[in-house]
Amino acid sequence: MAAQATEWIDDLYSSRAKLAGPGMVGINPRRVAEVIAFGGGYPDPSSFPIQDILDSARIALERDGEWALQYAPGSGTPELVTELLRKLQRDQGISAAPENVLITNGGSQALGLIWEAFVNPGDAIISEAPFFLGAVGRCESSGADVREVPLDDEGIVISALEHELERLAGEGKRAKFLYLVPNFQNPTGITYTEERRRQIIEIAQAHQLPIVEDDAYHDLRYEGERVPTFYGLDDSGLVMYTGTFSKIISAGMRLGWVIANPSIIAHLSGLKTDFSTNTFTSHIVAEFAGSGTLQEHIGHLKEVYRERRDVMLQALETEMPDGTTWTRPTGGFFIWVTLPEGVSGATVAAEAQQRGVSVGLGTNFYTGAGGERNIRLSYSFNDEDEIHKGIAIIAGVVREQVEA
Amino acid sequence: MAAQATEWIDDLYSSRAKLAGPGMVGINPRRVAEVIAFGGGYPDPSSFPIQDILDSARIALERDGEWALQYAPGSGTPELVTELLRKLQRDQGISAAPENVLITNGGSQALGLIWEAFVNPGDAIISEAPFFLGAVGRCESSGADVREVPLDDEGIVISALEHELERLAGEGKRAKFLYLVPNFQNPTGITYTEERRRQIIEIAQAHQLPIVEDDAYHDLRYEGERVPTFYGLDDSGLVMYTGTFSKIISAGMRLGWVIANPSIIAHLSGLKTDFSTNTFTSHIVAEFAGSGTLQEHIGHLKEVYRERRDVMLQALETEMPDGTTWTRPTGGFFIWVTLPEGVSGATVAAEAQQRGVSVGLGTNFYTGAGGERNIRLSYSFNDEDEIHKGIAIIAGVVREQVEA
Repeated sequence: MAAQATEWIDDLYSSRAKLAGPGMVGINPRRVAEVIAFGGGYPDPSSFPIQDILDSARIALERDGEWALQYAPGSGTPELVTELLRKLQRDQGISAAPENVLITNGGSQALGLIWEAFVNPGDAIISEAPFFLGAVGRCESSGADVREVPLDDEGIVISALEHELERLAGEGKRAKFLYLVPNFQNPTGITYTEERRRQIIEIAQAHQLPIVEDDAYHDLRYEGERVPTFYGLDDSGLVMYTGTFSKIISAGMRLGWVIANPSIIAHLSGLKTDFSTNTFTSHIVAEFAGSGTLQEHIGHLKEVYRERRDVMLQALETEMPDGTTWTRPTGGFFIWVTLPEGVSGATVAAEAQQRGVSVGLGTNFYTGAGGERNIRLSYSFNDEDEIHKGIAIIAGVVREQVEA
Repeated sequence: MAAQATEWIDDLYSSRAKLAGPGMVGINPRRVAEVIAFGGGYPDPSSFPIQDILDSARIALERDGEWALQYAPGSGTPELVTELLRKLQRDQGISAAPENVLITNGGSQALGLIWEAFVNPGDAIISEAPFFLGAVGRCESSGADVREVPLDDEGIVISALEHELERLAGEGKRAKFLYLVPNFQNPTGITYTEERRRQIIEIAQAHQLPIVEDDAYHDLRYEGERVPTFYGLDDSGLVMYTGTFSKIISAGMRLGWVIANPSIIAHLSGLKTDFSTNTFTSHIVAEFAGSGTLQEHIGHLKEVYRERRDVMLQALETEMPDGTTWTRPTGGFFIWVTLPEGVSGATVAAEAQQRGVSVGLGTNFYTGAGGERNIRLSYSFNDEDEIHKGIAIIAGVVREQVEA
């Protein structure tokens, strides 16, 4: 018999559950796919390497089936840890050892565990402004006291960071960590320069301020040279480096990671109450990475997404009315659009949605005020024709708003 | 550069992380496999349906690859929710709707979310005595005030449950929930009778006491008829029913579930910070279940495990010295052994380990005192020869202890 809602149970929820509130059950990408979807950060479904994944699954199961289908150590299967460490050394320039690794249920769980491990209600966190929607949500449900530091096109503004640290010291508070997305930032698409990174590391070391470096888009660079990671630049153990296979193999495999000093890894593990991370997909991804297929596939993805970025930038150039500006990302999925003065992002988003195009609402990327004249566009999900069509629709809406 | 441990970070951990403490990274089953492993609850690796899983993966990817490799709604993929509801109706006699379902990263995450949603430090929980190790651990890391109620061979003892509820009322406390494993209980192997279940439901309804019904072993019944679930017997929305595909398809797929009233599902979803559960394995398991392969496979597993249970019971009969008693489970993985008076479970476990046989330590299944003369034996992992050999070794140790 179907269970009924019972109000008396509400009294029994923990303070944690009351803080988080009733959950969304998450966005359904199938519903998103009914429109031209510039709103989400969904990988291109036509790029999923279905046959290569099946081949990797067959090889992994035939060789290691006994272990691929069994429980595994909570920190990750040895095969995946080994291949991840190789990949990080080769592609990210990061040297780490197995005791620095925790494999997680996607990058989302990596951030979830970090928030749980560090943030009590009222604790200060320093973020970028604007910053990743998923982190905004975690800040709100954890009751964090968020201090947003503005970005320029080289990273967070150093003087503003220093000012915020002084202000916190004046209040007798110490920030739990600085959260940032250094490559192809979400939502703005900007990338931190090496000089800015070095300045931030110096300040962080002086203040014993941990850094959460969320590098979800690292491998999707379409031009220019790799910039050293904060994790690689730091020699004091204060960087937690998170990443994911979601954007480079499959979001549905749910595999991400944290690389950090062993003391932090131990604390995060203590909060990882789901026991093993996905053993089966871990074996598939280890085989996929170990065989060289991953590197080839990343090469392919870069071509696909570079082309889409170029198409969207060109369409913006052609279609958008004067007074509209946007960022020019060197990688990742996102372009951050600033609308002409007097035009509301919320109005543009609502009107575009009516006409079959979803966009990211600028205000969603701040915990307080900000982003009222912004929208975020993702070029990852739709093909070139849809990108043309979608930008024409949005530009039409913006023009109407300018003229209104 | 490998990060270093930094003591100053210890000050920054949240109260939640400090309560949980540095984590174990979990048991490594490969290390367990080096011995005769009666200690863990690991499925039989030789029974994993490798070819059927590959076939299901191929069918699911060829048909639904676009969605199987993408993000999915946090509550679970529609395909898996549909197949799970069919399975619960057919095998468990449970009628539920999609709004009653949350798909989780294994049964472990189901319990993890329930503990997070209800338990603040100091909150009272009622458990069986002895009870599931994984729940014992959660009680400890959440700072719960656990009230253990003894079991007889029909379930928890009603008079003891009533006594505990009175005692709590006298202290002005209200238990957050009653946690139990009604079928082939872990660690004792006993199964609650229908009459006992009805008595417990009546008491729970009168006290507005939620019940967490952990039915991880439901499908592995080797004799007798199915007993109605607490979830099915209750009509007031107070039962959270948890289960898992770990024991009937693959622990490495990491798929479990909670069935509960929609208000509870919403609160659990709010705490599920890992976004999607494994989309890829969800599609595989949905295909595996929808095609009828799951039912066939469960039939096969029941034969394998019934035979192993019989072999272990027979070996105990043949080998164990007088004064040793044990339970006779009608399903599941576990036999609970009570050693002769004066013989310590810890000594037997340590000595058996020296001789290459692991067993579950009785004291691990209590939060306080209890289980000193007990060991738990699992017959799921090893074949019949190993079971014979392992029981002979344990019996030898017990005989030496009796004579000592």
